[in-house]
Amino acid sequence: MSTTIKKYLDERKTLVDKALQKFMPKPSGLASDIIKAMNYSLFAGGKRIRPILCIAGAEAVGGHADNVVPVACAIELIHTYSLIHDDLPVMDNDDLRRGKPTNHKVFGEAVAVLAGDGLLTLAFKLMAGYGAEKDVKEKTLLRVIDLIASAAGYKGMVGGQVVDITYEGKQPDPAVVEYIHRHKTAALIAASVTAGTILAGGTMDEEKSINRYGQQIGLAFQIADDILNIEGDRKVIGKGIGSDKKKGKITYPSVFGTAESKTIQKELITNAIDSLKRFDTRAEPLRSLARYIIERKT
Amino acid sequence: MSTTIKKYLDERKTLVDKALQKFMPKPSGLASDIIKAMNYSLFAGGKRIRPILCIAGAEAVGGHADNVVPVACAIELIHTYSLIHDDLPVMDNDDLRRGKPTNHKVFGEAVAVLAGDGLLTLAFKLMAGYGAEKDVKEKTLLRVIDLIASAAGYKGMVGGQVVDITYEGKQPDPAVVEYIHRHKTAALIAASVTAGTILAGGTMDEEKSINRYGQQIGLAFQIADDILNIEGDRKVIGKGIGSDKKKGKITYPSVFGTAESKTIQKELITNAIDSLKRFDTRAEPLRSLARYIIERKT
Repeated sequence: MSTTIKKYLDERKTLVDKALQKFMPKPSGLASDIIKAMNYSLFAGGKRIRPILCIAGAEAVGGHADNVVPVACAIELIHTYSLIHDDLPVMDNDDLRRGKPTNHKVFGEAVAVLAGDGLLTLAFKLMAGYGAEKDVKEKTLLRVIDLIASAAGYKGMVGGQVVDITYEGKQPDPAVVEYIHRHKTAALIAASVTAGTILAGGTMDEEKSINRYGQQIGLAFQIADDILNIEGDRKVIGKGIGSDKKKGKITYPSVFGTAESKTIQKELITNAIDSLKRFDTRAEPLRSLARYIIERKT
Repeated sequence: MSTTIKKYLDERKTLVDKALQKFMPKPSGLASDIIKAMNYSLFAGGKRIRPILCIAGAEAVGGHADNVVPVACAIELIHTYSLIHDDLPVMDNDDLRRGKPTNHKVFGEAVAVLAGDGLLTLAFKLMAGYGAEKDVKEKTLLRVIDLIASAAGYKGMVGGQVVDITYEGKQPDPAVVEYIHRHKTAALIAASVTAGTILAGGTMDEEKSINRYGQQIGLAFQIADDILNIEGDRKVIGKGIGSDKKKGKITYPSVFGTAESKTIQKELITNAIDSLKRFDTRAEPLRSLARYIIERKT
């Protein structure tokens, strides 16, 4: 990873982490348990890739991070809720996430379900509530809420997760794995970067190009996760290696093999960067992020 | 129940049911499982009290049902998601809801969790996406989304449910039961009726009165549920009688006894109707609904 992109990621991550600290409530009274459980997973060491993409999507068209940070943070809340629910014993049954015990291991399954529900709901409150104080048109904000809700819901992340779970142990199938990855992962990643561009007042053409970029890096991101689940370093990743195979998950390596998956992944990144050709140097972080996504070790 | 209020409830329920049929997707392709699971619980025979309250809250200040129906339906989606998650084995572990097998009994626990997630997310999409076609200002719509997200989240329904679960089997405590009921139930009921008033352009004073009404009938509604769980007819209610006591739930009857709970309930309804004194006959349905809430057998 180049020093420039490392610096960019670090700076934007700091911005997001500070904003999350500001937005999230402190434990108090009878609400202490739920707030602790929500904060536990939100502050468990995420890379903040989605909020950083949202900010980079705004900056690529000349927007400013400050105007998109509430939406960027809301997306991280949605991502975190999805991890809490995915880790539940009735879903992927994972005990570790980012090297720490999963939410239900610490707070119990009932509170973990509700912590996820609480984060998802708070994400929409955060988005709906901030327009008045920032330089964002209400109509634009509603469009972004609509976009993110679509990407997170049954037509996106939730829809992908259902197929991911229900097809466990079934015959690997190219159409199914693409459906799972495009819905479970690429939809919210594409919505993250596109939301940034929309909020910063990008044109419809810019928005389309950014969305195409987002869909491609989103799919590549999940393929990279699949490969890390085979070739990754347990200590670096902070969760079990080989768990996909053990569970009979349909992944790109299980359908195409690891070598072919890496080829597909590289093509996606080339196409993603190609989707950005209308943009100037302000889109450089997006280009670097595309490369980073398949080079990362965690 | 008077013929007038019965007719009012029936007509508004039909309106809501038709709109829900229009808004909800039909099972198709790989999304079939999640859509079936979402629709199963949504169309399992709910009374649609919350959406009807939302409509009545609009009509009380001269608004029209058509303008609030998308938000009214979104609230029913949120209510339904909460029932699916509450019924899960890790929560209340209920096998029956409205006389039918609960969502996880039919679709399995993983899909039930995701069906809830899908309904909650779709509710926000429904609200954010409809402003453009209806006579509702974008700013107003954002305020309503904010209000409903607050009422549904850790400061409202989710927060109440956590305390409901974590205090099972503990010493009955008046402060705790009031917290649970105000958060778990009254918050979303109050937000439903208030959202209607806001969307219909009610004044700040009207909004405050309606909110007070909503908080009072909301609390009375949950006390009525507690009493029905003791005195109700299993066949009419469609779920187990005595389950609260068996689980050691903190309820109004467990804290105050049944007789005292009925007195509290009646006082709440008197106060709720009193909160409406600034309104003319257009608020008559709200007054009747207040009475209906504690007289209902299901």
